Amino acid sequence: MIKRLLIANRGEIAVRIIRTCRMMNITTIAIYSKADKDSLHVQLADEAYCIGPNASTDSYLYIDRILEACRMSKADAIHPGYGFLSESTTFRKRVEEEHLIFVGPSYNTMSLMGDKIKARETMYHANVPIIPGSIGEVTTTDEAREIANDIGYPFVIKAASGGGGKGIRIVHESSELEKAFKEAQSEGEKYFSDKRVYIETFIDKARHVEVQVLGSSHHEAIHLGERDCSIQRKNQKLIEEAPCQALDEATRNSLHEDAVKATLACNYESAGTIEFLLTDDGYYFLEMNTRIQVEHTVTELLTGVDLIKEQILIANKEHLSMKQEDINFNGHVIECRINAENPEKQFRPAAGKVQALHLPNGFNTRIDSMLYNGYEIPPYYDSLVAKILVKGVNRQEAIEKMKGTLEETVIEGFPTTLDFLYRILSYEPYILNDITIKFLHEHKLV
Amino acid sequence: MIKRLLIANRGEIAVRIIRTCRMMNITTIAIYSKADKDSLHVQLADEAYCIGPNASTDSYLYIDRILEACRMSKADAIHPGYGFLSESTTFRKRVEEEHLIFVGPSYNTMSLMGDKIKARETMYHANVPIIPGSIGEVTTTDEAREIANDIGYPFVIKAASGGGGKGIRIVHESSELEKAFKEAQSEGEKYFSDKRVYIETFIDKARHVEVQVLGSSHHEAIHLGERDCSIQRKNQKLIEEAPCQALDEATRNSLHEDAVKATLACNYESAGTIEFLLTDDGYYFLEMNTRIQVEHTVTELLTGVDLIKEQILIANKEHLSMKQEDINFNGHVIECRINAENPEKQFRPAAGKVQALHLPNGFNTRIDSMLYNGYEIPPYYDSLVAKILVKGVNRQEAIEKMKGTLEETVIEGFPTTLDFLYRILSYEPYILNDITIKFLHEHKLV
Repeated sequence: MIKRLLIANRGEIAVRIIRTCRMMNITTIAIYSKADKDSLHVQLADEAYCIGPNASTDSYLYIDRILEACRMSKADAIHPGYGFLSESTTFRKRVEEEHLIFVGPSYNTMSLMGDKIKARETMYHANVPIIPGSIGEVTTTDEAREIANDIGYPFVIKAASGGGGKGIRIVHESSELEKAFKEAQSEGEKYFSDKRVYIETFIDKARHVEVQVLGSSHHEAIHLGERDCSIQRKNQKLIEEAPCQALDEATRNSLHEDAVKATLACNYESAGTIEFLLTDDGYYFLEMNTRIQVEHTVTELLTGVDLIKEQILIANKEHLSMKQEDINFNGHVIECRINAENPEKQFRPAAGKVQALHLPNGFNTRIDSMLYNGYEIPPYYDSLVAKILVKGVNRQEAIEKMKGTLEETVIEGFPTTLDFLYRILSYEPYILNDITIKFLHEHKLV
Repeated sequence: MIKRLLIANRGEIAVRIIRTCRMMNITTIAIYSKADKDSLHVQLADEAYCIGPNASTDSYLYIDRILEACRMSKADAIHPGYGFLSESTTFRKRVEEEHLIFVGPSYNTMSLMGDKIKARETMYHANVPIIPGSIGEVTTTDEAREIANDIGYPFVIKAASGGGGKGIRIVHESSELEKAFKEAQSEGEKYFSDKRVYIETFIDKARHVEVQVLGSSHHEAIHLGERDCSIQRKNQKLIEEAPCQALDEATRNSLHEDAVKATLACNYESAGTIEFLLTDDGYYFLEMNTRIQVEHTVTELLTGVDLIKEQILIANKEHLSMKQEDINFNGHVIECRINAENPEKQFRPAAGKVQALHLPNGFNTRIDSMLYNGYEIPPYYDSLVAKILVKGVNRQEAIEKMKGTLEETVIEGFPTTLDFLYRILSYEPYILNDITIKFLHEHKLV
């Protein structure tokens, strides 16, 4: 049983985790960089340890120092949050070696799903639809050409350990293949020390639809419905919704079943997310996020399930505390991510002191934030400062409620994406749900 | 259809109503006294009219000025909130004469339920259990004596229009009857210009359990479950919960059915509350509150129904937007009322400027408040400054979650009941649910 939990993170997610721990009477231990000494998570945690200077690499990514804080604080468990070390298999192994409970999946599961080639293979064998392409590694250009003949052009060559846009090449015609293949390989080698590549059909226009799942160490798995996260800017999600209104009932059920299959196939033990691309032809496994996500809150507001609590119970090796039929999906939830960024200056990250703050609250409204009056946002980390969520009886009501909530919100002292998000919510194609992941690329709303 | 709604109230309930109106695209018109010019409801409303000086009698209770503000602002409807004029039949009639929509029940219903003798009679004929005693007015001491012989001592003589502890006399033995009867009559006459009295058995130890109902102009009625509001200090509710854990399923169902019967019996058209006393022997109709209540939020968090929205739809003469079977009651909700009062000085009301403010938020947490940083609480009105609500999977979890939420809450600048409420929540008899309306009288927690 977890008694003393160290939270290897900062910002709103650290605050989020602390709140559930308080309810569960678990002592919380915060870590922080020098820049974060006045941050809300440090003030709210039962104990706090400074683990280094401002740069993430010297603090929130510095495994030795985090484990040293665990030893000093006699923590018995670590919650990694999202970002930082949350998907690092190296960190996962070190945590295990320290005999600490990791609030997340096993090392094996993380390794399996972190390797895009193995993840695709696993899903293929579990009968979960994957994007047409290679099964296993593609080692030669001849092999690549053979697959290309099969799936057609354009297609994509991707590095097995790729991420953040690195190690990806789109091939529009045969003549580009050789060069693209070599480049993907060498970028994989350069950035991830892994030159393995694989091939997928190029899907340009699709929705990003993901399914929240819970799996336990007793080989149980349930889903908590899907989220539509298609409103993205440069692969960064800005607005998330649930349920996805572009799914018919049959497709939705099938998607959910496949997500549960995927969860069982990788022996997943925690809260996780199976990401899919949804096109007119169907849906395809994209990847699994082996951690809590920023937008887990959408599912929490829709279903009433505390996902952080479930993560902790699962880490304690308990059975899932609910059955599939206990989960209800009533209404429609929208989340807006408020970032400290300047939309008028290419969304350049902003920093500064909170000069005025009014975060609404009330019926079916939730705001997760680490802001407080007078707080100085450091310029070193993620620009997310608040997640504003509302629930309506349907999507239309949720949109109206979100607009009212954004109108009421006051965050002064630095530029934010508040007005930009309001423009999206007031924009006809958004309201009509005519959306793909290219939405913000096609519609200039700045 | 309501398009322009004047809110004849202030504080957190005015803010609450504005938020739902924004979602419904209804223009909101605030009224305010001079003391309230910087208040949140004035800032959030689309329009605002100053209606007089600080004293309630010169502003929020001044019917002529409120109706003048309606004319000036071209309001088509009035929401009375709670307190102030919300249960005034005089106000109700004037609103009707101005051809304004009143977001609340009809004049006839308010008159009927506002008269305690007629309300008792109505419930008696509708087969809703009432406290043993007289049916109709008791005009002579002989009559009173006859009823006393029937129901036994002690009993209570109450003024028909009584309220706030006025016009009430407990009679312990026969010799006290004559004097008590005359006093109740003359106090009724003096304070309410109504000397009619009635008689009820004296119930000392009971729970205050009330049922939230919705009735429409189409003679439809549903209930939204009960609330246990037994934790009171001098008849002021401090903590409200739902569901009431002292009810077995059969009694709960019967209570709910009786509440719906009561709603239909008085042709109730809005959100209302039927209050009952719950003893070991059963439950008894106490009175009906013909308005939205402070603690309506408990039911909203439990059921996910927006009661203000329902009130507005009903005022628009729509059918109820849901059926009884659509209402779900999962989990347990607790509400703590944070008052600007000093528990160490007999709960003397406090005023002052908000020096520091941190209101938590997050999963299954709701705070309704009109506070903001730098806001100066005027000393003229109600001392309620925030309602903190949490929902847990059961009562125990809700208590733990509330304790964590109160711990996180920061309100500085004046004394509040925050710590006092925390003591109640940590106190064994409260945790064991060993509660009656005498709880705070019997347990000295200050």
